[in-house]
Amino acid sequence: MTRQQDSDIVETTLDSKSVYEGGFLKVRRDTVRLPNGRQSSREYIVHPGAVVVIAQPDDDHVIMVRQYRYPVQRVILEFPAGKLDAGEEPLTCGQRELLEETGYTAQDWISAGQMHLAVGYSDEVIHIYFARDLTAGKAQLDEDEFLNVEVMSVGSVLEACRTGAITDAKSLTCALWLQNVRSGKWGI
Amino acid sequence: MTRQQDSDIVETTLDSKSVYEGGFLKVRRDTVRLPNGRQSSREYIVHPGAVVVIAQPDDDHVIMVRQYRYPVQRVILEFPAGKLDAGEEPLTCGQRELLEETGYTAQDWISAGQMHLAVGYSDEVIHIYFARDLTAGKAQLDEDEFLNVEVMSVGSVLEACRTGAITDAKSLTCALWLQNVRSGKWGI
Repeated sequence: MTRQQDSDIVETTLDSKSVYEGGFLKVRRDTVRLPNGRQSSREYIVHPGAVVVIAQPDDDHVIMVRQYRYPVQRVILEFPAGKLDAGEEPLTCGQRELLEETGYTAQDWISAGQMHLAVGYSDEVIHIYFARDLTAGKAQLDEDEFLNVEVMSVGSVLEACRTGAITDAKSLTCALWLQNVRSGKWGI
Repeated sequence: MTRQQDSDIVETTLDSKSVYEGGFLKVRRDTVRLPNGRQSSREYIVHPGAVVVIAQPDDDHVIMVRQYRYPVQRVILEFPAGKLDAGEEPLTCGQRELLEETGYTAQDWISAGQMHLAVGYSDEVIHIYFARDLTAGKAQLDEDEFLNVEVMSVGSVLEACRTGAITDAKSLTCALWLQNVRSGKWGI
């Protein structure tokens, strides 16, 4: 949402190079021209994008997963989510990830906007979907992937956001959507 | 929130090393033992932590900033936030960042929990504060820091979350807190 009056804060790319390419993370360092004409550098993760799914077996419940998230050294309670494969459409990714992680398939998929996860150091965009009219099935986890599926009431999820049992930013964002769509304040 | 039954999903550190240290980003790659006994690697950003501030000049308004976020190549509308300096307490950081970015000081600071920003590839924790009883003053930006301050109604902020004018995950999380604290559903 760049406005006319934002021209005083925009940065311009002068140079861009890859500075780290690991098995998982890719880092670039760009040289930029600042609004005052000086130069600076910007380092950031290049990410393929992701999808998070608010899957509702009924109006009062959602499918959650518990997953060990190594960077924060703890089990995180979160909405099912995953990264886009190369060239994959967000909807296809959401359908694939929901099936793989939870075993559920859904007849009804509704897009509910996007979030930027870490604007300071990543280009990651996460696409948010509501999935409804669910059918339970068998999860299809990779051999080296481990998570537990939990059906939770919407009330419990919101309470978990308040108490700190949910601390994952993408999931807290999903809770905002869930609360407002469920109350009828936000249409999708 | 690791539970007894989560022992089947926890990963154990076998080795940890720094693989990239830039001017801004630090990346580590650890070798882990998976729950099935096999080994894998985990790459992640090491981050000092941050604070985000929901600053309320009155019940119906909040202080927002518009800032060019280079990784996503756009101006982002967000709640004021910043990284912890070495050894800095979160509250001190919140007070410093609010003053530096917006010029406001606050008499009343209330902690409202934490979020993990990007559990897949960063250890960043963001501490959330409400700041009230505000006094306006002059922002103290670094010479190379550029942002615009905007006083917005709470209704406009929530509407911006719905329409996609706010896409920043930490700010969407703040909107969840703001909505529920303001309605009286959540106490702080």
